[in-house]
Amino acid sequence: MGSEGPYTAQKRSVAGLPTTAPTGSARRAAAAAVHPRGKQTHKTFNNVKITILCGVITILVLRGTIGLGSLVMYDKEGANPHLTEETNRILAEIRSDPEDGEEEVLDLNATFALGPKIKGWDEDRKVWLRKHPLFPNYLNGRPRILLVTGSPPGPCENAIGDHYLLKGLKNKIDYCRIHGIEIVYNMAILDKEMSGHWMKLPLIRRLMLRHPEAEWLWWMDSDAIFTDMAFEVPLLKYKDHNLVVHGHRDLLFDQKLWVALNTGSFLIRNCQWSLDLLDAWVPMGPRGPIREEAGKVLTANLKGRPAFEADDQSALIYLLILQKDKWMDRVFVENSYHLHGFWEGLVDRFEEMIEKYHLGLGDERWPFVTHFVGCKPCGAYGDYPVERCLKSMERAFNFADNQVLNLYGFRHRGLVSPNVKRIRNESNNPLANVDRFDIRHSMERSNSRSKS
Amino acid sequence: MGSEGPYTAQKRSVAGLPTTAPTGSARRAAAAAVHPRGKQTHKTFNNVKITILCGVITILVLRGTIGLGSLVMYDKEGANPHLTEETNRILAEIRSDPEDGEEEVLDLNATFALGPKIKGWDEDRKVWLRKHPLFPNYLNGRPRILLVTGSPPGPCENAIGDHYLLKGLKNKIDYCRIHGIEIVYNMAILDKEMSGHWMKLPLIRRLMLRHPEAEWLWWMDSDAIFTDMAFEVPLLKYKDHNLVVHGHRDLLFDQKLWVALNTGSFLIRNCQWSLDLLDAWVPMGPRGPIREEAGKVLTANLKGRPAFEADDQSALIYLLILQKDKWMDRVFVENSYHLHGFWEGLVDRFEEMIEKYHLGLGDERWPFVTHFVGCKPCGAYGDYPVERCLKSMERAFNFADNQVLNLYGFRHRGLVSPNVKRIRNESNNPLANVDRFDIRHSMERSNSRSKS
Repeated sequence: MGSEGPYTAQKRSVAGLPTTAPTGSARRAAAAAVHPRGKQTHKTFNNVKITILCGVITILVLRGTIGLGSLVMYDKEGANPHLTEETNRILAEIRSDPEDGEEEVLDLNATFALGPKIKGWDEDRKVWLRKHPLFPNYLNGRPRILLVTGSPPGPCENAIGDHYLLKGLKNKIDYCRIHGIEIVYNMAILDKEMSGHWMKLPLIRRLMLRHPEAEWLWWMDSDAIFTDMAFEVPLLKYKDHNLVVHGHRDLLFDQKLWVALNTGSFLIRNCQWSLDLLDAWVPMGPRGPIREEAGKVLTANLKGRPAFEADDQSALIYLLILQKDKWMDRVFVENSYHLHGFWEGLVDRFEEMIEKYHLGLGDERWPFVTHFVGCKPCGAYGDYPVERCLKSMERAFNFADNQVLNLYGFRHRGLVSPNVKRIRNESNNPLANVDRFDIRHSMERSNSRSKS
Repeated sequence: MGSEGPYTAQKRSVAGLPTTAPTGSARRAAAAAVHPRGKQTHKTFNNVKITILCGVITILVLRGTIGLGSLVMYDKEGANPHLTEETNRILAEIRSDPEDGEEEVLDLNATFALGPKIKGWDEDRKVWLRKHPLFPNYLNGRPRILLVTGSPPGPCENAIGDHYLLKGLKNKIDYCRIHGIEIVYNMAILDKEMSGHWMKLPLIRRLMLRHPEAEWLWWMDSDAIFTDMAFEVPLLKYKDHNLVVHGHRDLLFDQKLWVALNTGSFLIRNCQWSLDLLDAWVPMGPRGPIREEAGKVLTANLKGRPAFEADDQSALIYLLILQKDKWMDRVFVENSYHLHGFWEGLVDRFEEMIEKYHLGLGDERWPFVTHFVGCKPCGAYGDYPVERCLKSMERAFNFADNQVLNLYGFRHRGLVSPNVKRIRNESNNPLANVDRFDIRHSMERSNSRSKS
């Protein structure tokens, strides 16, 4: 509606409106006839009022059209309002895929496999490792670990989500640099059937087969972050195991609780047993009717599970309950440290932890991993209030980042602040600080002490 | 302005407006008095008009307030309009820093230093390395490299910027995993004086002093990505040099061109010479009057430089021109491969490259690094059209990602598509594919051939 419209309408409505009482207007008309100057002033005054009203309407129209009040501003001045629309248009174009019309799903009778059945993987891998001495599966006496994580190929629904994915990845880079772990960050949809969280199964399998040098693959959700930069997974404890997952055996076998284990952070050995487990795990995964029906089975059999399609975590729990004898001798259900630490009970205690404890503990005193289950910063809808999640994630990132920045003489101003402050003056003997503050050197010293 | 305001004003103006000619209203009043039902209809009709007008105003106000038309939707259905505002509010709170009021800048006479003067670093470092055999500066005969990159602590002005930072980081993780390079991703403002691109100087210095095991530090801008996953920097070529930077000597010394070198991707050795270079480089950096005045000097002395404050790249160019004899014997100005490759001449030729050439060349036939100078996806204003930049960056990422995905049997559907397709069936002899398609194994074979 242009600014002329309301103004024109206004004039028409003015012209068409009678006075409420014939006598009133007649009286005013008579008075105006008697006092011509007063009439002119009154007329001018009313015209001014009309003009102001129409001006207001014009401003409102413009404001609604170019949306000056509702851009994602991030506290910056002068953001270009057309940039957002242009960006969205281009992204929609980039993401449009002529082959995306193929929305076929497997029917209930279809059999799904992650790939051709692999047999003899342990032996083949051993032979390969012998032939490739430059790609050993042990480095400095420690098994080689490949950390696997990722996110979907496109930008997040919630614009801030990508920023937290970036910080989460930085966090993993920091931990893995300190501990000599390689990272694979996956953004490819390898298997349309295994959509969502199920994507980790074909990904893990493929990485096992293409990285025979990796002894362990460590899956970690993008919303799980390291909060103990010194703690190391005690792999020696798992020398007879092939799967290490956080959870509780009693909740698993006695209660059959649907959250008895957490597949947001787990280690799986690169071996035949693991390939077989993945094959046994996958049948509930294919999207569509298979996953929906499987969801009903899981809900019916696992305590507390709401009604929704099958998820990989419930499916693993169900599999391990059903086939306990087949798998459990090689599964380590870990809860002596926070291989997965549910964020809600942890993030408010960081100040207490800093005061009372120290890094390297990995448990509830200084959690190894803090996992923001349910926050979903990448999506439009999380299970918790946005404010709670974002502030808690900031706290966790900074709690972890402080442990990294310590080497460089810095710390965040506060657990919610992205800004840092110096905590140690530069010295002209910088190497003394390296020995003292580099986590790797502290670990080296404590390893030497335990050996001697 | 609430919906009542204009409505109220509307009623007042209606009530207060006289008819334009006394006789007209008198006539209408007389007519209304004669025909009461007609008057009622007329009144009702006009009331309806007022109601409609006010309803329109109400809608406009609401639309402007909650901005329904201008959210960053990313082509998703059902995005929560209030989520964006809530997110922004929380972020503003997170980013508010009571100490941010300290906007003091150094005056022109102040001397700025990156830290206490370090002397004898080469000897001290050598001693340290001897004492720490578990932290050698050479691994498998190759110097240890630390790749350094980063971005500001807060989210990007343009929401899509964080998504491209994430993809850029994934790209670097892929390259560095293949080539055994460690990464530091910095998001901390270590020195408020050295804001913006100047941040790399205090960062590099601090990392040198805290990572004595790093033989080379490799600074890389967040908008520079690897597009040749096989190419390796020929470090042996630089055994007598301490700084490797892309550029042209004739443009540097003959023409004194302001873009003769590019500091978006360069290698600097961890040694005393480099610490001294950083000390000599830094004086033009401190924000405020120092940087502004320095900018004028640079513009006056470097060909083609527009008028703006001092940037680190121009400052290095100027320093090397002024003190050529002091520094240039240890500076390698590299242009035999694309240590930095300006994106504009490259991204449209990817299909041609795929057809005619192969990875490992690193030069204009298959660029090592493609650098999106001027695109600024994180900011609100780039130097190029948004569409050109976003599509070109997608193409470059996917061109690079295809080289990584090849090992796993996938490729992007098109250079602009984030989706992938299988290019090789799964085999029940997966290790044959490892030998054939893993870049590291191809490199190992070509190294063996060149030695024999």
